[in-house]
Amino acid sequence: MMEKMSKKSALVVSAHSADFVWRAGGAIALHASRGYEVHVVCLSYGERGESAKLWRSGNMTEAKVKQSRQEEAEAAARILGATISFMDLGDYPLRADKETLFRLADIFRQVQPHFVLTHSVNDPYNYDHPLAAHLTQEARIIAQAEGYRPGETIIGAPPVYSFEPHQPEQCNWKPDVLLDISAVWDKKYAAIQCMAGQEHLWEYYTRVALQRGVQAKRNVGIGSSKVISHAEGYQSLLPRVTEDLS
Amino acid sequence: MMEKMSKKSALVVSAHSADFVWRAGGAIALHASRGYEVHVVCLSYGERGESAKLWRSGNMTEAKVKQSRQEEAEAAARILGATISFMDLGDYPLRADKETLFRLADIFRQVQPHFVLTHSVNDPYNYDHPLAAHLTQEARIIAQAEGYRPGETIIGAPPVYSFEPHQPEQCNWKPDVLLDISAVWDKKYAAIQCMAGQEHLWEYYTRVALQRGVQAKRNVGIGSSKVISHAEGYQSLLPRVTEDLS
Amino acid sequence: MMEKMSKKSALVVSAHSADFVWRAGGAIALHASRGYEVHVVCLSYGERGESAKLWRSGNMTEAKVKQSRQEEAEAAARILGATISFMDLGDYPLRADKETLFRLADIFRQVQPHFVLTHSVNDPYNYDHPLAAHLTQEARIIAQAEGYRPGETIIGAPPVYSFEPHQPEQCNWKPDVLLDISAVWDKKYAAIQCMAGQEHLWEYYTRVALQRGVQAKRNVGIGSSKVISHAEGYQSLLPRVTEDLS
Amino acid sequence: MMEKMSKKSALVVSAHSADFVWRAGGAIALHASRGYEVHVVCLSYGERGESAKLWRSGNMTEAKVKQSRQEEAEAAARILGATISFMDLGDYPLRADKETLFRLADIFRQVQPHFVLTHSVNDPYNYDHPLAAHLTQEARIIAQAEGYRPGETIIGAPPVYSFEPHQPEQCNWKPDVLLDISAVWDKKYAAIQCMAGQEHLWEYYTRVALQRGVQAKRNVGIGSSKVISHAEGYQSLLPRVTEDLS
Amino acid sequence: MMEKMSKKSALVVSAHSADFVWRAGGAIALHASRGYEVHVVCLSYGERGESAKLWRSGNMTEAKVKQSRQEEAEAAARILGATISFMDLGDYPLRADKETLFRLADIFRQVQPHFVLTHSVNDPYNYDHPLAAHLTQEARIIAQAEGYRPGETIIGAPPVYSFEPHQPEQCNWKPDVLLDISAVWDKKYAAIQCMAGQEHLWEYYTRVALQRGVQAKRNVGIGSSKVISHAEGYQSLLPRVTEDLS
Amino acid sequence: MMEKMSKKSALVVSAHSADFVWRAGGAIALHASRGYEVHVVCLSYGERGESAKLWRSGNMTEAKVKQSRQEEAEAAARILGATISFMDLGDYPLRADKETLFRLADIFRQVQPHFVLTHSVNDPYNYDHPLAAHLTQEARIIAQAEGYRPGETIIGAPPVYSFEPHQPEQCNWKPDVLLDISAVWDKKYAAIQCMAGQEHLWEYYTRVALQRGVQAKRNVGIGSSKVISHAEGYQSLLPRVTEDLS
Repeated sequence: MMEKMSKKSALVVSAHSADFVWRAGGAIALHASRGYEVHVVCLSYGERGESAKLWRSGNMTEAKVKQSRQEEAEAAARILGATISFMDLGDYPLRADKETLFRLADIFRQVQPHFVLTHSVNDPYNYDHPLAAHLTQEARIIAQAEGYRPGETIIGAPPVYSFEPHQPEQCNWKPDVLLDISAVWDKKYAAIQCMAGQEHLWEYYTRVALQRGVQAKRNVGIGSSKVISHAEGYQSLLPRVTEDLS
Repeated sequence: MMEKMSKKSALVVSAHSADFVWRAGGAIALHASRGYEVHVVCLSYGERGESAKLWRSGNMTEAKVKQSRQEEAEAAARILGATISFMDLGDYPLRADKETLFRLADIFRQVQPHFVLTHSVNDPYNYDHPLAAHLTQEARIIAQAEGYRPGETIIGAPPVYSFEPHQPEQCNWKPDVLLDISAVWDKKYAAIQCMAGQEHLWEYYTRVALQRGVQAKRNVGIGSSKVISHAEGYQSLLPRVTEDLS
Repeated sequence: MMEKMSKKSALVVSAHSADFVWRAGGAIALHASRGYEVHVVCLSYGERGESAKLWRSGNMTEAKVKQSRQEEAEAAARILGATISFMDLGDYPLRADKETLFRLADIFRQVQPHFVLTHSVNDPYNYDHPLAAHLTQEARIIAQAEGYRPGETIIGAPPVYSFEPHQPEQCNWKPDVLLDISAVWDKKYAAIQCMAGQEHLWEYYTRVALQRGVQAKRNVGIGSSKVISHAEGYQSLLPRVTEDLS
Repeated sequence: MMEKMSKKSALVVSAHSADFVWRAGGAIALHASRGYEVHVVCLSYGERGESAKLWRSGNMTEAKVKQSRQEEAEAAARILGATISFMDLGDYPLRADKETLFRLADIFRQVQPHFVLTHSVNDPYNYDHPLAAHLTQEARIIAQAEGYRPGETIIGAPPVYSFEPHQPEQCNWKPDVLLDISAVWDKKYAAIQCMAGQEHLWEYYTRVALQRGVQAKRNVGIGSSKVISHAEGYQSLLPRVTEDLS
Repeated sequence: MMEKMSKKSALVVSAHSADFVWRAGGAIALHASRGYEVHVVCLSYGERGESAKLWRSGNMTEAKVKQSRQEEAEAAARILGATISFMDLGDYPLRADKETLFRLADIFRQVQPHFVLTHSVNDPYNYDHPLAAHLTQEARIIAQAEGYRPGETIIGAPPVYSFEPHQPEQCNWKPDVLLDISAVWDKKYAAIQCMAGQEHLWEYYTRVALQRGVQAKRNVGIGSSKVISHAEGYQSLLPRVTEDLS
Repeated sequence: MMEKMSKKSALVVSAHSADFVWRAGGAIALHASRGYEVHVVCLSYGERGESAKLWRSGNMTEAKVKQSRQEEAEAAARILGATISFMDLGDYPLRADKETLFRLADIFRQVQPHFVLTHSVNDPYNYDHPLAAHLTQEARIIAQAEGYRPGETIIGAPPVYSFEPHQPEQCNWKPDVLLDISAVWDKKYAAIQCMAGQEHLWEYYTRVALQRGVQAKRNVGIGSSKVISHAEGYQSLLPRVTEDLS
């Protein structure tokens, strides 16, 4: 699926095949533009729960929906500068057994990510999202263990961030990071436009980016002459280690 | 008291005259060693509530206690590389009126801090601490307002961090930042030793630094070959704006 | 089991066969009396965990316990004006696989509920209750998806409420709705009396209704000349959409 | 200031003279259009903290700023269909003593509100906002007491809602009500445009209304053929009493 | 007011003159019956906010209301076996300055309590209650300080408990202690009956005691043959130190 | 495995074979020294996730790791005065099906514990820990049910405590009990030294004990002349029933 990466890298775990675009497209494009190898794993195609328009178009089968969703996601990943793979676990409901967990842990070991992006740990509107978040966190823990496939290279302790859910307050999601994506907004919007089946969300997530941009400006310290127009919010799930508080 | 700073700077607001040493001495020494102008404001001397040993020594007056506490704090600040000032607001209880708030807002404008350190917003063991935290946050807001002393240079939106309280879980304090202070631990411990009246706390805060150091090691990402021995925990009160998630 | 409903309707998901009576009997009777079709689904009979008196009566088998519990629940539903069905999933522990989830999603589609009642999402005294709440929420999500059994009529986004657990504070349950059930209290108490095996709870839940009644009176706005004697508390799990704030 | 109201009425307590427009303009216009007497109380003019553009325009005094802000607020209230009064308590910081509390309690008694709108109880960016929220809640409690100005007509227990703060997640604000303001959006936007000094917020709050509109659509129950384009979010501070859960 | 106590002792801080009866009457009677010196401090008489019936009786003055409330409270304290004093700070709103804080700290030093009972730290229905709780906690802290009135005997670190508010869930109050008051229920009910002006609460708090009694039975460990009929709930504000976990 | 106990007893459920030593060794030794029969159940050996040193030692197999871990745990239990059994469920990830749940419920019935110790219900660093906590709570509930293996002796409602996780604040763990283990610290440290594979934790948990000891001293009431040097923190998951608040 992908070779061992030697550069800086990041892993994005997306419950359905479009989530990574709306929620983390800016972070992906930004870090890819700086040379990170970013890999996206789609746990499912969102074939049941997030393909309403396709189903309504008539004469549709699950295979056709998956095919269409995969093509869209691949196109979006290409624009953002990321590699992508699909686990095809099914959605509504997404479920994961031990083997799934190990497959994801193996991807962690291959990617050796410097940071990890996934869903929020609560979402009353979409039970697949928290499941993806917990699966990601548990796979990360297993990939850190010397006793799992002994002899393989374990991973470090990369930071994990939850990207923004659709109704943030209802998910008790609180961003502690505002990522300035102004420089790559055009790429993110181009990737968004790959999602032909979900046009109603294009403008929704454009507005999200603008709002987070305004908020980022409100939280910038002294001496920053940067113009921020678009941002993405993230919630850290673990403390960060640093030597600089400014 | 101090001149307008042109270099990077930081402001530390300490309810009592020793708090900044136990709780933020590492951050102060670390940033001072990199050229930050760090200014510490002590709202009170802790003359009533945190000078038990002095009071027990007999033949003591409040003036003598304050004098002794000021000398200790000045010595500690000198070791850490910070300037220090005292507002002498009294402790147990600390109280702040509008004029106090404005005095602190004026210090914000003078210091133009790149980051701010203060207490946790909850502490059932010490009501002066949350008051100091809220006073700091409100002073920061006022110093940002164009309409406060119009014509003066306003401040930006520096990040604000709560340093570690004495019983962290009881204060609902949760660190999201672990600051590696290994390089300056010797300075912090030297500053701690200035606090002659509170020897029982020397080893307590040495252990705090060691525990946070172990935790920092547990949260370090890939490729970090750094040896971390000591750390300080901080809780961000506001989101940070960044362009890098690793 | 039931035909497609054309009137207003409601769905109540009860982990054990008596829960809906103690916790939601008033809401059921009240809405039934106004013409709602209310359907109750009992996930289990509570045969292991909530039938202590039956088991102590000697010479008992699981089949006999279930039979007795079913009869009680049917009698109570009749008094309240609801239809009832039983999924017989077992209790202590209740467990649900994908097929169970789909069965419940199918009931959602049949009932097309205007609102949904179920358990609290936390309960340290009864793990079957949160499981029922989560199963209900996930089934609702699946029943909304075009891609689940494509071609069937999907459901809207009915509000979901958690009814009152036995020890509300321990479950972190906080009512944001107080439902005035004064007009149907006699029916609720008649239904309660069907639960021959749990007489110790009759007075407990009478007192609950009286306490919530007093609290409702404390929260009534201006110009309300209504006499409230009994109420039930509910916690909304999702925001409500309205055009009137009074 | 205003006469005893005999119709349905509402009270809006705004820390600064523009807050009610951005945050509650839709609710005001909506209820006014249905015949409610809506009264807005501005605790301050926001002369220091929320008039940056005016101060930057040069040759400005606090009196001139207040005058300008009052005119804007009056124009906005007129468009929305509300009466308005100003307590001129000062801002940055807003402070309230007992007499202020009693003045607000007296307004509660005059208005006899069927519902109350005010700020969120937390806001790390603006300490005046939580103070306004708490002042409102305490004034409401005092206006309910028989022993306060005995003989006067006390108020009932009107629901109190927090309107949306500028950075909702940072304020731990979670909307449990989405108010459909589609029918009055044009009025709200006209009122917004009265705020000449804060043009940067016009589009921000237009986007807020659109996002909440999309979210409202996601939370609408069955059989709703209504088209929702714009909404406002509210958080209830007290439980509501009802006889209908749909 | 009272002499230095040499026996085990407890301090109860009541915002209004009846609170201690409804909320802590059982704890008072129970410990008094075991030889504790229990002292109750009423911060106000509740003359404005909790004397509706008196005010409605006509021809009333604040002095008469206070007199009546004091007599009731003294009668109740006598039945429960406690001493009582009144600070007459006024209610609706209760306010406390530094001198008040010191007066309460002095009472702490006189009483040298083995435990402390007061209100919950949140109550959206009654702002006097949280104020009383915070005043109590801060006075306790001051009474512990060597530097406050140096030379006096300081206090230890007695546990502090919040007793049950009127609408517990709305106050985010969660009991972690259920005190068995079965043995003294008759005394508590006799004390309750002293509150002639608040008859509507007699049965309310009888039901509270019965519900907490049932809950206590549900939380009793092995080998307990005790019959519990009535209980009071308490929330610890600080951790307890023990040598026994059973 | 063990006979029906007639003395006071306690049950400790440990996810991995060393957890009970670091986290609850003091409680075990203390109660064992007073005559309690303390039984430890290790759900797994921690063979994958907590045996890094063994795996690094080369030429290792899972069977050898388990054997080594079992011997260490048995040695530690012997020193602490507890019996121990192993369920060998595997770790990283730990998983439990219905039969596992029943096996643990059966142990509850055999042990008839007067109190129960287990993990915290949250731990983002170790998903096996919360799973163990929930399994323990659910097994306890099943062991209380008359309908589970009817005719067997059910258990009472023993208190359940979460012991301290490795990074307490990150787990939202807040101790409400500080257990004085000064008298048995030497035994705990001897048991700790049995964990040859995890020497890096010896000093970490020594410092934890010292910090909790200092905190215990800060929370001790009046008249306590006891010298506390070491303590363990616990969080109650259920309210305690008592007749004494001091």
